[in-house]
Amino acid sequence: MKLDLILIGSELLNGKIRDLNTLELAKMTQAMGHELRKVHIIADNESDLSQSLLEAEKESDLIITSGGLGPTKDDITKQILANFFKKTIKENQEAKEVTLKQFSKTNREYIEEQFHYHKIPEGFYAIYNHLGYAPGLKYEFKKDKFIFSLPGVPSEFSHMLQDHIAPLLNQESKVTEHLIYKTWKIPESKIFLELCPNLWNDLENFGEVSSLPHFFGVDIGIKITAESDLEIQKKKNEIHKLIHQSKIQEYIWHIGPQTLEEIIIKEASEKKITFGFAESCTGGLCASKITDISGSSAVFWGSVVSYANEVKMKSLNVKETTLKEHGAVSKQTALEMAMGAKNHLGVDIAVTTTGIAGPGGATKNKPVGTVGIGVSSKNGNSSDLFYFNGNRESLKQRFCKKALMTLLEEIRKY
Amino acid sequence: MKLDLILIGSELLNGKIRDLNTLELAKMTQAMGHELRKVHIIADNESDLSQSLLEAEKESDLIITSGGLGPTKDDITKQILANFFKKTIKENQEAKEVTLKQFSKTNREYIEEQFHYHKIPEGFYAIYNHLGYAPGLKYEFKKDKFIFSLPGVPSEFSHMLQDHIAPLLNQESKVTEHLIYKTWKIPESKIFLELCPNLWNDLENFGEVSSLPHFFGVDIGIKITAESDLEIQKKKNEIHKLIHQSKIQEYIWHIGPQTLEEIIIKEASEKKITFGFAESCTGGLCASKITDISGSSAVFWGSVVSYANEVKMKSLNVKETTLKEHGAVSKQTALEMAMGAKNHLGVDIAVTTTGIAGPGGATKNKPVGTVGIGVSSKNGNSSDLFYFNGNRESLKQRFCKKALMTLLEEIRKY
Repeated sequence: MKLDLILIGSELLNGKIRDLNTLELAKMTQAMGHELRKVHIIADNESDLSQSLLEAEKESDLIITSGGLGPTKDDITKQILANFFKKTIKENQEAKEVTLKQFSKTNREYIEEQFHYHKIPEGFYAIYNHLGYAPGLKYEFKKDKFIFSLPGVPSEFSHMLQDHIAPLLNQESKVTEHLIYKTWKIPESKIFLELCPNLWNDLENFGEVSSLPHFFGVDIGIKITAESDLEIQKKKNEIHKLIHQSKIQEYIWHIGPQTLEEIIIKEASEKKITFGFAESCTGGLCASKITDISGSSAVFWGSVVSYANEVKMKSLNVKETTLKEHGAVSKQTALEMAMGAKNHLGVDIAVTTTGIAGPGGATKNKPVGTVGIGVSSKNGNSSDLFYFNGNRESLKQRFCKKALMTLLEEIRKY
Repeated sequence: MKLDLILIGSELLNGKIRDLNTLELAKMTQAMGHELRKVHIIADNESDLSQSLLEAEKESDLIITSGGLGPTKDDITKQILANFFKKTIKENQEAKEVTLKQFSKTNREYIEEQFHYHKIPEGFYAIYNHLGYAPGLKYEFKKDKFIFSLPGVPSEFSHMLQDHIAPLLNQESKVTEHLIYKTWKIPESKIFLELCPNLWNDLENFGEVSSLPHFFGVDIGIKITAESDLEIQKKKNEIHKLIHQSKIQEYIWHIGPQTLEEIIIKEASEKKITFGFAESCTGGLCASKITDISGSSAVFWGSVVSYANEVKMKSLNVKETTLKEHGAVSKQTALEMAMGAKNHLGVDIAVTTTGIAGPGGATKNKPVGTVGIGVSSKNGNSSDLFYFNGNRESLKQRFCKKALMTLLEEIRKY
């Protein structure tokens, strides 16, 4: 099935908010073997929405809109849909019921003249929104082709996707699997142009190939579609063999869609290793990324976010002379932080970050982008300085990824 | 000037990566008083890209594409642009020079047959990419109407926006200002339907009104455009007066585009107040959000991410009996964490979080979404339990926002 997603809201186009709904729908569509063909992001404006609807109606089997269903004056999605499909807006019993249900749940009075939630275009169905007030809408615009109009608020959009779109996507049965080989320590062009110049073509015999380069590696994807699970398994074995025999093999750190954080939690849990951080420049980002993963509490004990030197000394036992002689951003400080954190948190492995994320803080020998990474574990204590490019936000991310890579390498030594 | 942004890459549509480039361009366009009309997100596919180009060429003055300029087989943007504008791809001296410059900077050999970066569509200009290898492209498709083709990697996209798009947007002179009134503790519909039913219409006399509801408040925006700074100032004064006299006044916590984190850093710096956190359920997110702000090191000293009870007891002096009798998620633990953190970090204000982000961890009396927030300052120690809805990711965000709101309220007591 082909899908078009239309995001409606000028706040998405003037930089006030980040779109979260595309990723949500994209992951679901992909997991169920369908194709998200195009995402349109437009303002609350009749001509742009009509143009997007016209294209989507022609190209896709399922159209999902998000946004513009609220009670304020710029919420005009319902009216534009009515105009586009040549319907009049009328009172609808079902719409009234789902609206009243939600208002009574939150002990609020529903005032018909203010909200208009009970009026929807003729032929449309109202969908219950159990996290907000505005109901969603559903309409079959051609045989077996539907448009869903959902709220823009991510939590409401998300539960309506799960409740109403997922069952629809699940009806078609077709076996699809997405194989992902995750590499690190080698740039994309080296892989495909120098190391394995035939790899892309060879992989294309099995399915659609993609390559996603990012800060610390390249994720190579192969989307296999087949008639049966058996056939999928056969193809998978052949691809594994092909990769295993290629020169890329030694750069693969993981096979599968899991993130670095997920793999850290998984492998630390299997080996019963506890860990923690002492973070200066990453300011809690390492800990926050790890605790995004459900189950992290089994192995992650904590992090000392030691932004001020006072905290580095008091909590982590970093020596005042070390800070004076080598500076807070140094191999020596990173090392003492690691040893101090391991001891203070009582963990098996401590990894530390101390660096300059900018824009201020650079010195003659230590430019913005310098970071000291330290490790302390039963295998010993070590630290090193690294240099990266970027602005404050991307540097924090890069420092953090480097620390997490170091942690995974340490876990793998156990 | 109207802009269309076309993001090219199937990884955006199958959920493998989150788009960062829209927000970057949206903010820049908005700040310079132009209009981002539409964002198209499409796969690496000739028919979809041509269709988007056709619409953008008709509707906008400036088209920006991102992605598909790399050396691998799915990087087909250059060829599709050539086809669309009916150009042939040829060797280009400028393209060769900017490419060689970057390769020599990183001590890599440029192999023409592998990369093809020196070949671009006739009539196009090559743009130097100082963070990556693939040059960008620029083409004037009608008089004073340009298309820029930039790399998809956010850091490369961003520097090329700054270097090439910003100067172009800056040429037009027109005075625009975006006034934002940030409210909290009141839902959107109450503001516009019950409290101030005429506010939206009254504000519309001055410019384009928008309302952005989010977890803890509503941001009301008014975009004013005028011929002169004087006229802008006059309108601003009238709007301020209107808001000041309305019932919404008492719910406004800030006027301006700054985020909660930015206001916390600003007000704490002005009052010379230091602060820190003890975080359990937010796992470092509060600290990370604060340290995203440049200048935070003047007032933010650190955070004790105490995920394990052992760390709560050792670093924060939470009593074992408190954890046993009341549980880690309780008013009592939140309170002891706050007192311990203030002492351990040596700060003026400590704010703490201890809650259940799920999916596991719920008990009979404490559902997923329960959070204890504690504060310790010279004004005393206090704590309370709150209940929110959401999944693990959104609950972490909500717990964190609640803690930051509490921090700002405490700073304002000084």
